[in-house]
Amino acid sequence: MNDRIAQQQHSPPHTPEPDRARRANDTVRLSLQEVHALVTCALRQHGFSEPHVNGVADTLVAGERDGCASHGLYRLLGCIGTLKAGKVSRDAVPELHEMAPALLRADAGGGFSQVAYRMALPRLIGKARAQGIAALGINRCVHFSALWADIEPLTDAGLVALACTPSHAWVTPAGGSKPLFGTNPLAFGWPRPRQPAFIFDFATSAVARGEIELHRRAGKPIPEGWGIDADGKPCTDAATVLDHGAMLTFGGHKGAALAAMIELLAGPLIADMTSVDSLAFDAGTRSSPMGGELIIAIDPARFLGEQCEAELARAETLFEAMVGQGARLPSQRRYQARESSLRHGVRIPRSLYDDINALLPRDMA
Amino acid sequence: MNDRIAQQQHSPPHTPEPDRARRANDTVRLSLQEVHALVTCALRQHGFSEPHVNGVADTLVAGERDGCASHGLYRLLGCIGTLKAGKVSRDAVPELHEMAPALLRADAGGGFSQVAYRMALPRLIGKARAQGIAALGINRCVHFSALWADIEPLTDAGLVALACTPSHAWVTPAGGSKPLFGTNPLAFGWPRPRQPAFIFDFATSAVARGEIELHRRAGKPIPEGWGIDADGKPCTDAATVLDHGAMLTFGGHKGAALAAMIELLAGPLIADMTSVDSLAFDAGTRSSPMGGELIIAIDPARFLGEQCEAELARAETLFEAMVGQGARLPSQRRYQARESSLRHGVRIPRSLYDDINALLPRDMA
Repeated sequence: MNDRIAQQQHSPPHTPEPDRARRANDTVRLSLQEVHALVTCALRQHGFSEPHVNGVADTLVAGERDGCASHGLYRLLGCIGTLKAGKVSRDAVPELHEMAPALLRADAGGGFSQVAYRMALPRLIGKARAQGIAALGINRCVHFSALWADIEPLTDAGLVALACTPSHAWVTPAGGSKPLFGTNPLAFGWPRPRQPAFIFDFATSAVARGEIELHRRAGKPIPEGWGIDADGKPCTDAATVLDHGAMLTFGGHKGAALAAMIELLAGPLIADMTSVDSLAFDAGTRSSPMGGELIIAIDPARFLGEQCEAELARAETLFEAMVGQGARLPSQRRYQARESSLRHGVRIPRSLYDDINALLPRDMA
Repeated sequence: MNDRIAQQQHSPPHTPEPDRARRANDTVRLSLQEVHALVTCALRQHGFSEPHVNGVADTLVAGERDGCASHGLYRLLGCIGTLKAGKVSRDAVPELHEMAPALLRADAGGGFSQVAYRMALPRLIGKARAQGIAALGINRCVHFSALWADIEPLTDAGLVALACTPSHAWVTPAGGSKPLFGTNPLAFGWPRPRQPAFIFDFATSAVARGEIELHRRAGKPIPEGWGIDADGKPCTDAATVLDHGAMLTFGGHKGAALAAMIELLAGPLIADMTSVDSLAFDAGTRSSPMGGELIIAIDPARFLGEQCEAELARAETLFEAMVGQGARLPSQRRYQARESSLRHGVRIPRSLYDDINALLPRDMA
């Protein structure tokens, strides 16, 4: 199948968008297959081994498909940049270590996280089903993916799941003044019968760092609560926050407590880097964070036995009560985007499309 | 020992505070032994079985000792109130069920949670050490304790721990307008060599319900962000929020996502009540919430093997970096209060002291 996709890539530049008016909006419409082919081709061109090509491509396509532009095709540029900076292995072969009946560690060997996770996933699922609960620490991985992508294979297997990972030290603890924590995302998933899973995935920083960077580029002040200056004072100047101050967590001391928990769970608990370590390793190259990820999976069927079906149905009444009063389920927008993308493909900025084409072999671009 | 304490109770009303000026402040100073004796006596007087007397007394004394007045002696009134409302069993004998090698359920039989947890604790610790990670669901328990009290025995055993429990449906999901979630606390603990553990324990509501009640009593408006009126609009009137509207979560949609997670983990995952169920069961009696609690324990020694000591030491550098820049560790204030209480005892409002004495046998009060 990869050959077939590569073949498609050899056709002349994509023209899947015949509508002139739409061209004027500077976007390009691509099918998901086309996005996949584009990504695959660029990654191969940069020498990634096939497992890494597939793992990264699937993640980027899933992000684009689900309307998460910042975790979609755009991230390909970051992946290539991280490679060029010498901060990720293009062909690492992960190693799995069984630490205990319910604990696994997967050493990603400095490669992107996906290959290690794919290798570990069947064992994690097996352990969760056998022991009732199990945890996986992915070590020495470069992490750029949204965590919901790591949760979904577990909810697809009928498991309840939690995942977290540190990032680069950009965020200050409540009451502090210096960057210490990463944007440290936390994700949770709950399997739903005959429906896409209930999944949330959020940064413990007040906003994504990219959000503040967009304000800097636009020369706009940022709202209070996003960052502080070098003296620890509230600051609305994006450049000051990014270059001299620090970002803030969401939810004050509670968000900061969660950020610290994530440093610990996906850092020392699995003998991996904290966000401070990761930023030091980065050495100013603006690469994706290097470090660990912790994933916990619980099998509701083991907790519940014969009650399982009835209890999963009872959980549905909670979701119905949320939606029924106008609250949105965390992944609702993402699933809507997915449905649309699967039917109609995705629309990406022409500038991004051009940037990615510039990464392809010359005879293809 | 209990006899000896009861004996102390038979002495005339306590006069441990000789200082006249302090008496004028309407407080009473008691040693922790005196607090324990007072609670024990009141619980016995109301017919609780000895395991429940001890479990509840230890929890209340620990709260008072750590300066958590709302989870200290004051809660004794709530415990007795819950009993009088017929919403807690005074002598339930819990049952333990092993669901899987790494999963336990403890049926508290409608009693306070402590006895079930104490019964399950050695098995939970044993499972975490044997399997690397383990989870305990406590079912059909009445829960009034701060969750840090449930985390501490696990960090004392060198384990990393997470705990959560729903409460009564008072809190609306982000974007909603009706109460659905409880104040749903989440707690996390990390063992520290030669130091009290790193533990946080926070409600996923913006504030405790009691905080809003204090504003109502004082006739003061509440800050924006704490609650909404019946139409889902931001509201600063405490009575409206409490009686017709709903409380809000901390941190907007992120806090709401956590609150939903806690409903699921300590609700349907262990076949127990959601906060809506608990409030319905309460039937207006203002009793403590009835339902489930989920506790997860991870053994860092199993994840880390020979690296364990070095990694726990590495975690210390994170705490040092927090404290070094003026950020407070989550339990810092509590441990300071503890140190002072162990030396000097605690000071409680005379009105509370009188209320509790009124619960004692007539010949003792």
